[in-house]
Amino acid sequence: MTHSVAILGASGYTGAELVRLIATHPGMRIVALSGERKAGQPMAAVFPHLRHLDLPDLVRIEEIDFSAVDLCFCALPHATSQEVIRELPRSLKIVDLSADFRLRDPADYEKWYGKPHAAPELQAEAVYGLTEFYRDEIRAARLVAGTGCNAAAGQYAIRPLIEAGVIDLDDIAIDLKAGVSGAGRALKENLLHAELSEGFHAYAVGGTHRHLGEFDQEFSKAAGRRVEVQFTPHLIPANRGILTTCWLKGDPQAIHSALATAYEDETFLQVLPFGEHPSTRHVRGSNFVHLGVVGDRRPGRALVFAALDNLTKGSSGQALQNANLMLGIAEETGLMLAPCFP
Amino acid sequence: MTHSVAILGASGYTGAELVRLIATHPGMRIVALSGERKAGQPMAAVFPHLRHLDLPDLVRIEEIDFSAVDLCFCALPHATSQEVIRELPRSLKIVDLSADFRLRDPADYEKWYGKPHAAPELQAEAVYGLTEFYRDEIRAARLVAGTGCNAAAGQYAIRPLIEAGVIDLDDIAIDLKAGVSGAGRALKENLLHAELSEGFHAYAVGGTHRHLGEFDQEFSKAAGRRVEVQFTPHLIPANRGILTTCWLKGDPQAIHSALATAYEDETFLQVLPFGEHPSTRHVRGSNFVHLGVVGDRRPGRALVFAALDNLTKGSSGQALQNANLMLGIAEETGLMLAPCFP
Amino acid sequence: MTHSVAILGASGYTGAELVRLIATHPGMRIVALSGERKAGQPMAAVFPHLRHLDLPDLVRIEEIDFSAVDLCFCALPHATSQEVIRELPRSLKIVDLSADFRLRDPADYEKWYGKPHAAPELQAEAVYGLTEFYRDEIRAARLVAGTGCNAAAGQYAIRPLIEAGVIDLDDIAIDLKAGVSGAGRALKENLLHAELSEGFHAYAVGGTHRHLGEFDQEFSKAAGRRVEVQFTPHLIPANRGILTTCWLKGDPQAIHSALATAYEDETFLQVLPFGEHPSTRHVRGSNFVHLGVVGDRRPGRALVFAALDNLTKGSSGQALQNANLMLGIAEETGLMLAPCFP
Amino acid sequence: MTHSVAILGASGYTGAELVRLIATHPGMRIVALSGERKAGQPMAAVFPHLRHLDLPDLVRIEEIDFSAVDLCFCALPHATSQEVIRELPRSLKIVDLSADFRLRDPADYEKWYGKPHAAPELQAEAVYGLTEFYRDEIRAARLVAGTGCNAAAGQYAIRPLIEAGVIDLDDIAIDLKAGVSGAGRALKENLLHAELSEGFHAYAVGGTHRHLGEFDQEFSKAAGRRVEVQFTPHLIPANRGILTTCWLKGDPQAIHSALATAYEDETFLQVLPFGEHPSTRHVRGSNFVHLGVVGDRRPGRALVFAALDNLTKGSSGQALQNANLMLGIAEETGLMLAPCFP
Repeated sequence: MTHSVAILGASGYTGAELVRLIATHPGMRIVALSGERKAGQPMAAVFPHLRHLDLPDLVRIEEIDFSAVDLCFCALPHATSQEVIRELPRSLKIVDLSADFRLRDPADYEKWYGKPHAAPELQAEAVYGLTEFYRDEIRAARLVAGTGCNAAAGQYAIRPLIEAGVIDLDDIAIDLKAGVSGAGRALKENLLHAELSEGFHAYAVGGTHRHLGEFDQEFSKAAGRRVEVQFTPHLIPANRGILTTCWLKGDPQAIHSALATAYEDETFLQVLPFGEHPSTRHVRGSNFVHLGVVGDRRPGRALVFAALDNLTKGSSGQALQNANLMLGIAEETGLMLAPCFP
Repeated sequence: MTHSVAILGASGYTGAELVRLIATHPGMRIVALSGERKAGQPMAAVFPHLRHLDLPDLVRIEEIDFSAVDLCFCALPHATSQEVIRELPRSLKIVDLSADFRLRDPADYEKWYGKPHAAPELQAEAVYGLTEFYRDEIRAARLVAGTGCNAAAGQYAIRPLIEAGVIDLDDIAIDLKAGVSGAGRALKENLLHAELSEGFHAYAVGGTHRHLGEFDQEFSKAAGRRVEVQFTPHLIPANRGILTTCWLKGDPQAIHSALATAYEDETFLQVLPFGEHPSTRHVRGSNFVHLGVVGDRRPGRALVFAALDNLTKGSSGQALQNANLMLGIAEETGLMLAPCFP
Repeated sequence: MTHSVAILGASGYTGAELVRLIATHPGMRIVALSGERKAGQPMAAVFPHLRHLDLPDLVRIEEIDFSAVDLCFCALPHATSQEVIRELPRSLKIVDLSADFRLRDPADYEKWYGKPHAAPELQAEAVYGLTEFYRDEIRAARLVAGTGCNAAAGQYAIRPLIEAGVIDLDDIAIDLKAGVSGAGRALKENLLHAELSEGFHAYAVGGTHRHLGEFDQEFSKAAGRRVEVQFTPHLIPANRGILTTCWLKGDPQAIHSALATAYEDETFLQVLPFGEHPSTRHVRGSNFVHLGVVGDRRPGRALVFAALDNLTKGSSGQALQNANLMLGIAEETGLMLAPCFP
Repeated sequence: MTHSVAILGASGYTGAELVRLIATHPGMRIVALSGERKAGQPMAAVFPHLRHLDLPDLVRIEEIDFSAVDLCFCALPHATSQEVIRELPRSLKIVDLSADFRLRDPADYEKWYGKPHAAPELQAEAVYGLTEFYRDEIRAARLVAGTGCNAAAGQYAIRPLIEAGVIDLDDIAIDLKAGVSGAGRALKENLLHAELSEGFHAYAVGGTHRHLGEFDQEFSKAAGRRVEVQFTPHLIPANRGILTTCWLKGDPQAIHSALATAYEDETFLQVLPFGEHPSTRHVRGSNFVHLGVVGDRRPGRALVFAALDNLTKGSSGQALQNANLMLGIAEETGLMLAPCFP
């Protein structure tokens, strides 16, 4: 059986990544692609790498007949997404890739995004899309909120450690390194090749990045108490990839054991042998996460690493994994592409 | 039906690319991987990006039981390949990715590779692996010689123009730009990141590159007369990708028309509308070739571009496409992965 | 004696490069910097790499007291430059880095830039700034027009060959490769890191690039007849650097000899031994040009290469070299910085 | 007055960087260059970017007449350096860029470098070359040991904070990001462009990097008690640059104040306003260090950043700064080159 899907916001990187993945998915057919500013254009004009595919032209959202759509991916900008989704038919399954439905508490949303939520009832309904931790809820959900790509990386490294009680909850520092595609296709001076290549720097330093809202919500839930991590991301001259270096207090072996146990049945979460650590280049273009634990020379301290591709497992791959669950398809379908190295 | 394949020389980039592609191929199973210096190691130790796959460990060639193998990919170094292949069972289908069997004439081989061929009878038997031009021969072949990656790019741009008689055969200049992975995983100073990034230069300037042997052989065959192109490649700071800029004399519209006609039924060869030209980034990680024709301001002169991924269509993707034909599998199987952009 | 200089358009890359070079120039002092949209800001806010320098804040052009200025560098956008320069005091020496005064013939200007020139009398007055070929005129000039960076690279490779009569004037093809900084700091999608890195493509294909206006003007002047080259540039994922690969007909040795003879007394123009060819990485950040000549396998054909840094010798270094001449300072002053490799 | 200097190990990156810097130094003349494997070659063959300079050919060390040399830079590999230096004339001033003389205690040396020191008496004599903290000792020294590039970056960020007593000495975590040139020109698979670009990973994780020996020695000395930091470096796909992200406990304002006060008279150490943080691209190719302090959302915690160019301030620039002091030349001579951006 083939399911019909639409992608709203198909002119951005996460939209294009969805198309790339669905291109070899045996159970999905793309019946509509929207792109407000590019409406009327063929997808090949916006993303020439997809020109071999038989795809519908980009249209405006209001032109789409949603009655013929089983599931809709929303890859729209933050804040726009909530406005659009609340107008979509209630019968439609939706996977949202924006930040709009990640935070359950309206007050948290307002704190991190600077204005009240426009669709608080949907916010309450949405299931948080970190697949491996919300699988059952996602299967039953109508609306799933894709996680932040940084938030996914940090949670894969740390969440089982909180649940297993093997780390000090008051001293968690996440030093994150991210490639540039996570910032999207926006025209910003600091994303120009001449500005970005051959250098590196931090951004959103010291606890101002919005994905902290997700860390606070999820880690506190997992811990059963308030947990506030430290988190500073850095921008690295590469296109894809996130690496989290988590500076933790706890027994390194116990940490490794907790992680390995938690993920032993997970297809996409690969825990390396103790003492090894991952590289973003080995997950590029794939839905895999490589995790590593190394003990520090100072006893009782450990480094935990998670590497993933922000556009795949951090965003569009995760979205497809969730969509598979929502449609009753095997979870790995379309997602077993091996990483593209070199 | 699943065919059993072996990959000799699996510790190099083309070997790893074969594994990446076969990973989602429904009709092939990898039963043996060889790597002389890495024998005894799991593939994940040599290429961590393949760690999620259930692969045999690397072994020495002599440890492989070829009776259980339907087809063997040889991704060995030049010169080594001919020594190995002549010892393999005659019943085995072989796709060779080295340069050893590309040239039909022993004298040509000696001229370009500097020594006599060690298996001239196999050289005579081998079919040249430029799939779209030798499809029938490849289907019937026991031994197929993969083309040079540069030679493939240049031929896709020019070969139909020679056949159609629309260009001046005495004034063909191929200015080629290539990413670094074509040079392999060898430890050479000029391939270091600090040497290579942020700069560009020509190499094998003025008619010394070995792929000229293929150009001479194939273009002369297509023309029915001796054709000697000019060819100079350049090394570009990117990992994957070849772009040929062909400076040709002939009517641009006639050239475009000849190319579009020749490739109209080809899945992987995509001719852009007249006046458009391709980018390597839009074929990255895929088996597609994007071709473009633009007229020069000077009448009767045209630029013809071909972009492909040297590791995929230029090497391992081509090899798999040929293997599919040899095994009676649909030619596109395992090769419809969309390019990975950005 | 210290000369007072102003830089108009100091918030772009060529403006910043001028500041970088003048920072260690013993005979110049920067007394004014303009940047329309950044007026009021310290230079360190716009270019943090210059924060150690004691520089005037950015102002609007009309705020500058030109009576205290000996020489003015104009690094303004094309078309803006001519509007601004015609309002500047006639007593002021000016080095313009825009395209506005490169073409002598108003009809040529209109052809390549799409509208009539606003200051044709200045256009007539301006001296073309290719230092090594217009040294005496530049010394005496009030207004010097900096060349196009691509135009400079192509002329250094070919101009002496035309003058020496050693190449076929009807078959000159310039395949140029350029880093991204030549496109400036403009916010364009194709200049984003995620779009540009890890790929390469041609642009302005087949004779549409505006620097052809300069080639036509200068090569025809040198030849004493109309010369129309073929010229197609390519965008390479690197920040600085231009490499021209010139496909020429003529005796390679005679070509090398003509080039070596023409440049034997030139500090910045370094002709490599016959058979060697240059890399952009070896001139990065410097005012040097490396030139190479290699014979093709086809007799009577040669490849001539020129490598330079588009921001230095292709633009701001050239401008400073010309300013030195205009102010009676030794030509090399401030320009002997060694290339920055790796 | 012009001082004669020799550079041993001139065929590596730090040797070439010394030549680049000394090229515009008014008070030094390079009279000898050694390179064991490249002996007999002109420097331009090994580093074509230096071809415009009038340099002596590379020779073997034993061919150098040290009686004509005032000061010798040793840019030799670790372990080799101590063997060579103990044979040099006692009258010679020496700046060593290797790791051989950084640790004062023979036991520390053996611990971190795995074998006993071959010249313990020189080890005792050597002055640690972190210029701003050992200025007087360096002025009087005969033998100065250049610091590790990572060790320099970390110390510039943290050392004044220890001296001022404004941070918790038991919870210092240094998450360092480094470009690839720090690894030198060695032929290692992980330094190939195809392996390194478009990805990032940690190395020497958890307290195994040899520069920890310097941190322990120097921070303990500054604190008057044993201090053991946590330190994990990461390899970033860029050629030059080190960024340290220091995760510290202490009052952010007090930390900023301590840093600003300590460096207020330092030419090369630039402390950004509170709340700002640096980028490696803004110090590229220069001797400057940019430092920033940002408060975390969690009270009493701060992030301190230092950015420098590993080849310049982290190695050869530092060496030249120290040589200036040892020769009685103004400290900044030859080192005021502005960073090369973009």
